[in-house]
Amino acid sequence: MTTDPFPKEAAARITLGGGEVTIGGMAKGSGMIEPMMATMLAFVTTDAAVPPPLLARALHEAVNDTFNAITVDGECSTNDCVMLLASGASGVAVTDATLDIFTQALKAVCLKLSLGIVRGGEGATKLVTVTVTGAASESEARRAAKAIANSPLVKTAIHGGDPNWGRLIAVAGRAGVAFELARASVAIGTTVLFREGRPHDEAAPQAAAYLKGPDVSVCVDLGAGRAAATVWTCDLSADYVRINADYRT
Amino acid sequence: MTTDPFPKEAAARITLGGGEVTIGGMAKGSGMIEPMMATMLAFVTTDAAVPPPLLARALHEAVNDTFNAITVDGECSTNDCVMLLASGASGVAVTDATLDIFTQALKAVCLKLSLGIVRGGEGATKLVTVTVTGAASESEARRAAKAIANSPLVKTAIHGGDPNWGRLIAVAGRAGVAFELARASVAIGTTVLFREGRPHDEAAPQAAAYLKGPDVSVCVDLGAGRAAATVWTCDLSADYVRINADYRT
Repeated sequence: MTTDPFPKEAAARITLGGGEVTIGGMAKGSGMIEPMMATMLAFVTTDAAVPPPLLARALHEAVNDTFNAITVDGECSTNDCVMLLASGASGVAVTDATLDIFTQALKAVCLKLSLGIVRGGEGATKLVTVTVTGAASESEARRAAKAIANSPLVKTAIHGGDPNWGRLIAVAGRAGVAFELARASVAIGTTVLFREGRPHDEAAPQAAAYLKGPDVSVCVDLGAGRAAATVWTCDLSADYVRINADYRT
Repeated sequence: MTTDPFPKEAAARITLGGGEVTIGGMAKGSGMIEPMMATMLAFVTTDAAVPPPLLARALHEAVNDTFNAITVDGECSTNDCVMLLASGASGVAVTDATLDIFTQALKAVCLKLSLGIVRGGEGATKLVTVTVTGAASESEARRAAKAIANSPLVKTAIHGGDPNWGRLIAVAGRAGVAFELARASVAIGTTVLFREGRPHDEAAPQAAAYLKGPDVSVCVDLGAGRAAATVWTCDLSADYVRINADYRT
């Protein structure tokens, strides 16, 4: 048995009306990752008794904000899948009334598995949380966040520890979403580097120090609305190229 | 004066009704390249006398199949532009009757400049011609070709000289276009590696030898129609990552 340096196992325990239930899961990554449910595999189990329609609803909601919100290299694979099995062994039933509690716990398990996949991304040295705010709609927020998360220039800048707000703004501007430069802002961690059309380069050293850490976040406000979305990705390193260039069919 | 190892200068001379005209051009690349006319700069001149509406029509057609059909890293920049100036100094007029000849010559100049930009792409070691055939429409052909040309797994496989037809098929299948696996095919150079749903791995050594060259082509037939498109890209190397990770704002 080998030990995964980037664990992709997670569990949650919740108390519902009838008692305590457990949700457990494990996943496999982690190149060729931008799941549209195609090489990513995840298996989640629970001892709750959940009617199939409720189980499907809970899984779709959980997957949308977790597995479907990660990207390593923008490549979806041919067999991404998440399987959720409910045994009912706890004797505790999930009903319409308790579905939301169950779904939130399921989402927490799926998120932990998803972040494990990204942390273990080919050649990855950093987990990057990309949040887009100020979007005209949630789908535009997601689209901009995915564009930023898949941008080779953003991913290499973060790999190099470069607080390059220009690359973030440039990708937001070409993402095909509503974007108002004069009201846009960029933060790396909690350091604002660009606000209302003006750079704050005096803050760059602080942001550069922050980017040395293994878990970093970037936030871009599009200045165009009130919707937001978060996706998770990793940096792009020379090791990603080596792993995938040296692989032989 | 420095010499560009990847020349981005081109000229064409054509004879029209009234005499001979020349079209000359130069361009600048070459990271942040997937022009939607945003860091790419190109300047093209001609001594033909061309009425502005005809000049615009010729340029739009030429750009569509050249500058707008290249990608280094999928990143469009903030100031891509192509400028075409016609002096009329040759005394030869371009008319509706001769516009097509002029446009073809202009396209040849633009293509040479475009390929120079791609050859000089950051970290690039190969010029890759991606042709998609068998598409349901020209726009779907272009979309699939762009998806292949921007795929990090395809670009790293080509960098490593790996005739990985599976990565080509996988990207075609996720490109969001009509695709019939049972009728699809993949060729690297003139070597067919996949046809009608079946791999021809016995041809892999021949394709691998071909991929060692500096100019390579890949062709994917989607098996879904009769439309085709070609785009040009370069391989993805560890040097691309180094150039962009080591750059400091």
